[in-house]
Amino acid sequence: MLKKKSGYVVAILGATGAVGKETLEILEGRRFPLASLRLFASKRSAGEVMSCQGKEWKVEELTTESSFTGVDFAFISATDAISREYGQRLGAAGVVVIDDSGVFRMEADVPLVVPEVNAHALTAMPRGIVSIPNCTTTPLVMALKPLQDAVGVKRVVVTTFQSVSGTGAAAMDELMTQTKDLMSFRDTKANVYPYQIAFNLLPHIGSFNDGGDCSEEVKIARETRKILETPALRVTATTVRVPVLRCHSEAINVELGRPLKPNEARALLAAMPGVIVYDDPAKKLYPMPLDATGKDEVYIGRVREDESITNGLNLWVVSDNLRKGAALNAVQIAEYVVRG
Amino acid sequence: MLKKKSGYVVAILGATGAVGKETLEILEGRRFPLASLRLFASKRSAGEVMSCQGKEWKVEELTTESSFTGVDFAFISATDAISREYGQRLGAAGVVVIDDSGVFRMEADVPLVVPEVNAHALTAMPRGIVSIPNCTTTPLVMALKPLQDAVGVKRVVVTTFQSVSGTGAAAMDELMTQTKDLMSFRDTKANVYPYQIAFNLLPHIGSFNDGGDCSEEVKIARETRKILETPALRVTATTVRVPVLRCHSEAINVELGRPLKPNEARALLAAMPGVIVYDDPAKKLYPMPLDATGKDEVYIGRVREDESITNGLNLWVVSDNLRKGAALNAVQIAEYVVRG
Repeated sequence: MLKKKSGYVVAILGATGAVGKETLEILEGRRFPLASLRLFASKRSAGEVMSCQGKEWKVEELTTESSFTGVDFAFISATDAISREYGQRLGAAGVVVIDDSGVFRMEADVPLVVPEVNAHALTAMPRGIVSIPNCTTTPLVMALKPLQDAVGVKRVVVTTFQSVSGTGAAAMDELMTQTKDLMSFRDTKANVYPYQIAFNLLPHIGSFNDGGDCSEEVKIARETRKILETPALRVTATTVRVPVLRCHSEAINVELGRPLKPNEARALLAAMPGVIVYDDPAKKLYPMPLDATGKDEVYIGRVREDESITNGLNLWVVSDNLRKGAALNAVQIAEYVVRG
Repeated sequence: MLKKKSGYVVAILGATGAVGKETLEILEGRRFPLASLRLFASKRSAGEVMSCQGKEWKVEELTTESSFTGVDFAFISATDAISREYGQRLGAAGVVVIDDSGVFRMEADVPLVVPEVNAHALTAMPRGIVSIPNCTTTPLVMALKPLQDAVGVKRVVVTTFQSVSGTGAAAMDELMTQTKDLMSFRDTKANVYPYQIAFNLLPHIGSFNDGGDCSEEVKIARETRKILETPALRVTATTVRVPVLRCHSEAINVELGRPLKPNEARALLAAMPGVIVYDDPAKKLYPMPLDATGKDEVYIGRVREDESITNGLNLWVVSDNLRKGAALNAVQIAEYVVRG
């Protein structure tokens, strides 16, 4: 258990990446009690200066020689290899590691936490590591939790529309560069993704298994079951990359355990902390990635009865993948740990 | 019944629109037996010259005075009001009307046809009108038909990713203009759509009913049941506009009547005329809108078992909405009528 202090030493591994930058902004915006900040990145970014809470912090190169003495929290959002190496090491050394990778999520002795849904899981962190879910899982469980508690959820069919920032800053640059090239009638190049993403769709996120599922599709199903503590929940997913900069959107079809009218569902969802129900189609009000960008909340709209099945419900969910889908959720976990 | 001739007089109502232009290209590419062509559009486009089969044809203004004497086929792809007025009138006057609107699709005495699926329905055209389905319904029924015939289809959950050309040429211009404006750090304007579509998603196609469904979502369900002649088929849809120029993509989740392995499904789909199975994820081969643009075939990939349900199957389908989704399907119907 972390000792109560007036300020904590926080390390960010991957500070200059898309999630790292957002983490700095959120630590500032939420006035996280910082004693000091240690920013780590690859050699290329070392020496850069980033500001947070009115101070400037220099980015250090992350090496095996890096010392973490005195660090209370480490946010890791870099590569799987970095999570594997530093997550283990720092967790064992008494640092509270909040990891954004898929490396530890499904391990039984690592809690996988969305504070609004299962903060109680933070009471057991035997390895000093807590994982945050995939950026598509987080909004999904935020939407499912109140439904699960009220009437039970039997089956979920989810289709995702994932922005390029889910891949990172380089992918955002790639979408912009390809778009500019196309607008100037120049040929485009694809480096981050296997194909052009500008004005295109890639039904491919992560790697494929033998059954033809994307790793992202497998993660969504497994992580949802772990977070909701519903090992029998049936989930199938199709994950698609779309030419959008920020926010992941999801068309979610749910088979509920008992009847629930759309109005009742809206009321349950609106009562969920961190969720905003934005749903008035007659006035053309529904969640969109442009509107949700930079926002903390998960936006839910298009709540409709699915008449094709008993107790069926359709939802449209949009959430900023860099905020609630990553950095915000990580900082919220740190806040829970601080509060004790 | 149309008399056999060496060439037919074809009228296109809405000749200068996105679908009209594609119809000209397809009449040329497929060497449709043309005696002559009558091109109709609004006053704004009257006088323009368009070429087809080596000849130039002048666009006439469509007015209530327009004469259609001698016309054998009329392709209508304009507004609902034009379909309503001219569809009725020309059909009654002995013209074979092939209509792209939603005006007649669900009427019992108007066949709704995708030739590969239900060409037999063309034998009864009491009003002289045949409707072509919504551009999202067509690829869906092309994918479902062989599955329905082999093992039965019980329920379909479909999420669409629809390109702006489904709305028409003005929407394609709007996406391009907004993109250019954003790339030049200028403010964007939305005219065709209620909100910016560039780098955004709009979960809204058509108008909303009281239950919160889009008209497009309702159409998909109704039209699919009519074309497949499966009035009890359970279908739920979520339709989304994406910043893609051409091709509609669909994530389709199917509950089949009997077991079918993904390999068997691929074989059935590959044997369907007009379908190409493009499905080798290990080699990163899957359908994408960019690849399917300008193609006649419906591309199907990501064929996977859905383990969340007995006899579940996931598919990813991409098809050029201006070709098979509209103009090609219409010309194929005319070819069927010509062949008799």
